[in-house]
Amino acid sequence: MSLPTPHPIPGLRLGTAMAAIRKPNRRDLLVMLLDEGSAAAGVFTSNRFCAAPVQLCRAHLAAGQAPRALVVNTGNANAGTGEDGLARARQSCEALAARLGIVPEQVLPFSTGVIMEPLPVDRLIAGLPAAIADAAGDHWPAAAEAIMTTDTVPKLASAQIDVGGRTISVTGISKGAGMIRPDMATMLGFVATDAAVDRALLDRLVRDAADASFNRITIDGDTSTNDSFVLIATGRAGNAPIRDLESVEGRALARAVTDVSVRLAQAIVRDGEGATKFITVRVEGGRDAAECRKVAYAVAHSPLVKTAFYASDPNLGRILAAVGYAGIGDLDAGLIDLFLDDVHVAHRGGRHAGYREEDGQRVMKQRDIVVRIDLHRGSASTELWTCDLSLDYVRINADYRS
Amino acid sequence: MSLPTPHPIPGLRLGTAMAAIRKPNRRDLLVMLLDEGSAAAGVFTSNRFCAAPVQLCRAHLAAGQAPRALVVNTGNANAGTGEDGLARARQSCEALAARLGIVPEQVLPFSTGVIMEPLPVDRLIAGLPAAIADAAGDHWPAAAEAIMTTDTVPKLASAQIDVGGRTISVTGISKGAGMIRPDMATMLGFVATDAAVDRALLDRLVRDAADASFNRITIDGDTSTNDSFVLIATGRAGNAPIRDLESVEGRALARAVTDVSVRLAQAIVRDGEGATKFITVRVEGGRDAAECRKVAYAVAHSPLVKTAFYASDPNLGRILAAVGYAGIGDLDAGLIDLFLDDVHVAHRGGRHAGYREEDGQRVMKQRDIVVRIDLHRGSASTELWTCDLSLDYVRINADYRS
Repeated sequence: MSLPTPHPIPGLRLGTAMAAIRKPNRRDLLVMLLDEGSAAAGVFTSNRFCAAPVQLCRAHLAAGQAPRALVVNTGNANAGTGEDGLARARQSCEALAARLGIVPEQVLPFSTGVIMEPLPVDRLIAGLPAAIADAAGDHWPAAAEAIMTTDTVPKLASAQIDVGGRTISVTGISKGAGMIRPDMATMLGFVATDAAVDRALLDRLVRDAADASFNRITIDGDTSTNDSFVLIATGRAGNAPIRDLESVEGRALARAVTDVSVRLAQAIVRDGEGATKFITVRVEGGRDAAECRKVAYAVAHSPLVKTAFYASDPNLGRILAAVGYAGIGDLDAGLIDLFLDDVHVAHRGGRHAGYREEDGQRVMKQRDIVVRIDLHRGSASTELWTCDLSLDYVRINADYRS
Repeated sequence: MSLPTPHPIPGLRLGTAMAAIRKPNRRDLLVMLLDEGSAAAGVFTSNRFCAAPVQLCRAHLAAGQAPRALVVNTGNANAGTGEDGLARARQSCEALAARLGIVPEQVLPFSTGVIMEPLPVDRLIAGLPAAIADAAGDHWPAAAEAIMTTDTVPKLASAQIDVGGRTISVTGISKGAGMIRPDMATMLGFVATDAAVDRALLDRLVRDAADASFNRITIDGDTSTNDSFVLIATGRAGNAPIRDLESVEGRALARAVTDVSVRLAQAIVRDGEGATKFITVRVEGGRDAAECRKVAYAVAHSPLVKTAFYASDPNLGRILAAVGYAGIGDLDAGLIDLFLDDVHVAHRGGRHAGYREEDGQRVMKQRDIVVRIDLHRGSASTELWTCDLSLDYVRINADYRS
């Protein structure tokens, strides 16, 4: 994705530095500095091995102090590191707080990278002054680069909306290329707005946006230990604080936040480790959203389906097989329809009479493919986004630490 | 695995033929002919898209007629083929029954191969006379070859036990290299004994053996549409019929059947598509077997864990991450121990103080590796077997139909 020019968010500055967390000569440290009056809300990984910084983020957000800074390092996840990892995450918060004249609970820490290795917190702390000195409102592109791990492109999205005559900006960055599946899906996502937003509504907005974006992507079915998605509101746009999701302003802001989040989430899939295809899996006709999700994830996680997409091989029976083992005990396979974009592949559970392999082949060769499955047992539907499983996925992950 | 010399099962003959189901000049058709007085029991895929032959097998076994013949083709799964597929499976049973002078319900059909393509039933039927003419009691090795798809080696196991002064033989074959996970796990497994066994006990034995063998393996997490495991008892050994699982004879037979089944199941994993490592995942200290299985499958299915094994890279935090997202909501990550063979990798959820990377590296380079996870929350345990995810897995599955 070509980087759009992001709209700066008044009240928010971003600074990066080279801290040699894992490798020298790369910007691997990011601080985001928030003016007084800002608010933030987050959603985090459901992984029980959640990383030390995730534990601290949760605690600091719960403490009720308004966040004033975020500190993000790449190269080391500080996960699977036990009590020692928690102590190192605390040290990084304390060091940044001391430099900014705030309390440690006002700092939110994030880490991404290798698991189960000690965070080099001394080097991280040594990098803070340079990062702070670098902070500026238009450093979003450098920030997007600083949080990359195996990502091949930085991920950035931005939007502007008009709320009661005031222009409000929404800008965000994300990273994540492997160990990607809900909940949460992204390893790191940060979206900020200058809108004034009630804190309770902010909590709701971040959850809704996550459900519509980062919680709908999967690359390899591995739920990371570090997934974090934070929504920041600096309140500097001058609008009357938005409190009601159902108001005109609330709906407009929710749409903009979700739109930016979806673009960031889809960018993660497009840059999935080794990905050559972007695949939308849409399941319709389910009894409820939960069973639609089961089917969609079974299809999106099947290595056989994913390798068939990689090969552009319309071996579409593999999709039917995945639907069949998705875990719906009373599914009637004899009702299923399967479409590949506009091509009707299967009808009533068997090959559609009009299906021609060359039509399937044509769609399979595209870079963007929509798989649509109709269960014909209700009116619920869901959609998620995934990628293929390529030789490069294995190469990248067999090689990650070397 | 080098093929052991199998013990023939009196009352059972096997014959193969080249029927050109998918490719010419290969033995792709197998018939197994049972003498009168034989019994059979089976367990089948839980996939809702179960193949036409699986549906017929279930119906024929339920009809209560003693089975007299099995017919197996490779090259075409006859799955995802709707009503037409069912009609073709019926035709194959009718044709074999007519030739043998039995009723179609006494024939059990099995298919394995590509999904969602019409079974060339005319060619299958045309091959039956040659297969029948070929039938002999010592044709187990040819039968093991005839059911292969992407398997690189035939799979055969055999054992003999003494029951009340009578020698009883147990011999089996299996196939399956991809689309492998419970329940059922193997695409096809056939085990036969000449023991006289009560039919109700036979049902119990096949379920118990499957749970201890084929339902404990996973290669790619894809549950096939065609998985079938059948246990045949010809009753020709001359023993008094075994009725009680808890009797000396019942326990001995159960052990032998399970032993043969485990060897066949493990052979499938060792020959998993692209597999270079055989990995035992053992989870201990769970509250119940179900949560142990959740953790074991999360580890065994994680593409990141599997690629790390492929690379012999002791990136063992990936295992902790998989434990964390296995779905145990109240798991205390701070209690977890992780061992790689004899190497203590993680203790209380973090890197063990005595762990040295070169020790992890040493174990990772082995062809056989035991991953042991202790949850420290109960006394339940489970074990399953899997393989790594290699470049060849992707190559094979991106290429399967070409």
